[in-house]
Amino acid sequence: MKGMFVPHDETTVKDLGGGSSRRLLAWNDALMAAEVSFESGTEGALHTHPHTQCSYVLSGRFKYTVEGECKEMKPGDSVIVPGGAVHGALCVEAGTLLDVFTPAREDFIGA
Amino acid sequence: MKGMFVPHDETTVKDLGGGSSRRLLAWNDALMAAEVSFESGTEGALHTHPHTQCSYVLSGRFKYTVEGECKEMKPGDSVIVPGGAVHGALCVEAGTLLDVFTPAREDFIGA
Repeated sequence: MKGMFVPHDETTVKDLGGGSSRRLLAWNDALMAAEVSFESGTEGALHTHPHTQCSYVLSGRFKYTVEGECKEMKPGDSVIVPGGAVHGALCVEAGTLLDVFTPAREDFIGA
Repeated sequence: MKGMFVPHDETTVKDLGGGSSRRLLAWNDALMAAEVSFESGTEGALHTHPHTQCSYVLSGRFKYTVEGECKEMKPGDSVIVPGGAVHGALCVEAGTLLDVFTPAREDFIGA
């Protein structure tokens, strides 16, 4: 039973296309953290997954939508996306979200 | 089924004593986010809980211990603490950790 330490400079960036990219951070089966960076004007299209998600704004500004409710978010703001909720984000000013999921997004592993 | 948006400026600081404080951020039953700020030299004593935890360094530097393994962490670094693992942190340079738990820490609610 060990903690999984992940130095930021040992992570790799995956280009998601369309002006966004993702870094997979520390994770185990129960919890997974990832940074997702967006260029200004980039949209994270509406989508859904069974995992519960928390997004925390590390930098930039976003219009974030969950189940039709849209809020502008700035650094330090956070939101919970319940499992199954339709959500997406429009980047108003370039920046990075910290997304944490439970359970782990198996589709992010090795992707 | 709604997302829970939590603007940072609507959160409140709880003084934990001894040079540390906590802000409860967005949460639901499955996932809970909190910022924990430390003055330099402050220690988050070794402890354990059944919740799985992810800590992400927002600012500052920390010597973080999980089950006897100690690593120095800087901004952007992250760690997973498995449920039941003994862990703690010594703040080397004043800063803030973003801690995310699954399931929610019921002891943080209204505390």
